[in-house]
Amino acid sequence: MKQYCFGADLGGSSVKLGLFTTAGELLEKWSIPTRLENNGAYIVSDIAAAILAKMAGRAIPADEVQGVGLDVPGPVLKDGTVTVCVNVGWGRFNVREELEQALGGLRVCVANDANAAALGEQWMGAGKGHQNVVMVTLGTGVGGGIIVDGHILEGAHGSGAEIGHMLMLAEDEVDVSCNCGLRGCLEQASSASRVVDYAKKLLRETDLDSPLRAFDDFAAKEVCDACAAGDELATRAIDRCCTTLGRALGILGTCIDPEIFLIGGGMAGAGELILGRVREVYRRSVFQAATETPIECATLGNDAGIYGSARMVID
Amino acid sequence: MKQYCFGADLGGSSVKLGLFTTAGELLEKWSIPTRLENNGAYIVSDIAAAILAKMAGRAIPADEVQGVGLDVPGPVLKDGTVTVCVNVGWGRFNVREELEQALGGLRVCVANDANAAALGEQWMGAGKGHQNVVMVTLGTGVGGGIIVDGHILEGAHGSGAEIGHMLMLAEDEVDVSCNCGLRGCLEQASSASRVVDYAKKLLRETDLDSPLRAFDDFAAKEVCDACAAGDELATRAIDRCCTTLGRALGILGTCIDPEIFLIGGGMAGAGELILGRVREVYRRSVFQAATETPIECATLGNDAGIYGSARMVID
Repeated sequence: MKQYCFGADLGGSSVKLGLFTTAGELLEKWSIPTRLENNGAYIVSDIAAAILAKMAGRAIPADEVQGVGLDVPGPVLKDGTVTVCVNVGWGRFNVREELEQALGGLRVCVANDANAAALGEQWMGAGKGHQNVVMVTLGTGVGGGIIVDGHILEGAHGSGAEIGHMLMLAEDEVDVSCNCGLRGCLEQASSASRVVDYAKKLLRETDLDSPLRAFDDFAAKEVCDACAAGDELATRAIDRCCTTLGRALGILGTCIDPEIFLIGGGMAGAGELILGRVREVYRRSVFQAATETPIECATLGNDAGIYGSARMVID
Repeated sequence: MKQYCFGADLGGSSVKLGLFTTAGELLEKWSIPTRLENNGAYIVSDIAAAILAKMAGRAIPADEVQGVGLDVPGPVLKDGTVTVCVNVGWGRFNVREELEQALGGLRVCVANDANAAALGEQWMGAGKGHQNVVMVTLGTGVGGGIIVDGHILEGAHGSGAEIGHMLMLAEDEVDVSCNCGLRGCLEQASSASRVVDYAKKLLRETDLDSPLRAFDDFAAKEVCDACAAGDELATRAIDRCCTTLGRALGILGTCIDPEIFLIGGGMAGAGELILGRVREVYRRSVFQAATETPIECATLGNDAGIYGSARMVID
């Protein structure tokens, strides 16, 4: 095992980068802008340049670098082909081969960003010490990652662990279709954005008094705060989010039976307000052997992606 | 790799046994009764005696035997501990260690029977050539097995792939609780037994004419036959089975994204009557990338367990 590795986490506005020891210590992190011009044609060379510059600056020779991991916001096939990354303008190409070439032959591994975040948490975050971890990220959407025996469950079409698109709601429980085209996805009840939408719908369609009526606009944080203060309208929105997520985790506990579930993303910031409700529903929705599986908050925050990306090259 | 291996499939009335080449050829199969006396205390030694006798009879020396796989009707932990096997009277003990000792030190692997069946189909049945397979068996209950990268997904509590207990129905869609204690399991709509129960409920509670009214009693086969002949009542029972299964496979396709789904057990005997309906629901319930994943019948029938058990020792 060589001494160093790099992790890169590609987002729509910036690429986060991390230099790690292969033992899992984050030595330095920094970021570069994501250049969206020409359908993201410069992104791969920008990442390579940033890493090569860091190696030069720290006088790290290539033969002390185990490799470079990269996660991207879209499906990734086993050979490192991305099929589409809408946020950065990419169509189908083999990003692994292209980045390897740009890095002068350093080993490259590529994964989906939600999957990499799960691997990062399993390696050095709240999942440390476990080999089988299911992570769900509650943000603008609902992302997911499944780690089986220490490895990402990638899926035959690079869409393993699309947990946010588990069909959990009846068609008449949602007003519109999900971005993915289905109708009734977990994401439609449990993402931070949909929690806000649902609270707004209740404000429009009910006469319930609520401190949320005082806002021109608000985010999931305000819904969580109002719920914590006992507001009925906010509580309904949070309960819908947590009940649907608890049932989804129940199905995952029954089928995958991980050692631990981790919840990340903005909504997880509300801590026990969310976790307590999710655990309660989970326990009465899951096959008996798995009722005591812990459900905890992720701990690496926005660094989970660079940790997981770095971890991929250590095998 | 040595030349031979054995697979054993423990059921409530008999133990099926198979002698295989490690290349996957079934050379001979036979069975012995399952002795239930003394809480199944003689089962392990009976299996060992049967295998040692076969080796002696065929003059196969121990150093040409790769090992012996055994599947059992209950949860199995990674170290070979069974926690409970109601059908054969077993409580908690390490069956792997006990069978290894009885076999004079031959390598032993142990798995749950539904998981072993999935591995058998992946090795030499309808899943041959694929590394990622999800199998569902529609019999008295609904069993499941998930193969990820050629290995059984065992789960942290030995209850990975308890697909039959995915909570798929609303509480008011079922009249009673499932044997597992939950209410609304896939099994409650899609097992052969529950298809019959549901048809009988429709006979009692509706005035629908049906050829099933001519029977004193009937099995799932008769419901399938009546459905194939266009009977509305039977069609309702089959549709409920297939719709619920199709939605469950949709969730599994979204989360696990296997290369192929396999349907086994008695109900699979009806072939396209079941498969066609399941595929139709699956395609509109799954994340887009996985809509074309094949759903086919398993092909090894009752031999799937001995194949999968034998496969476990080849790694």
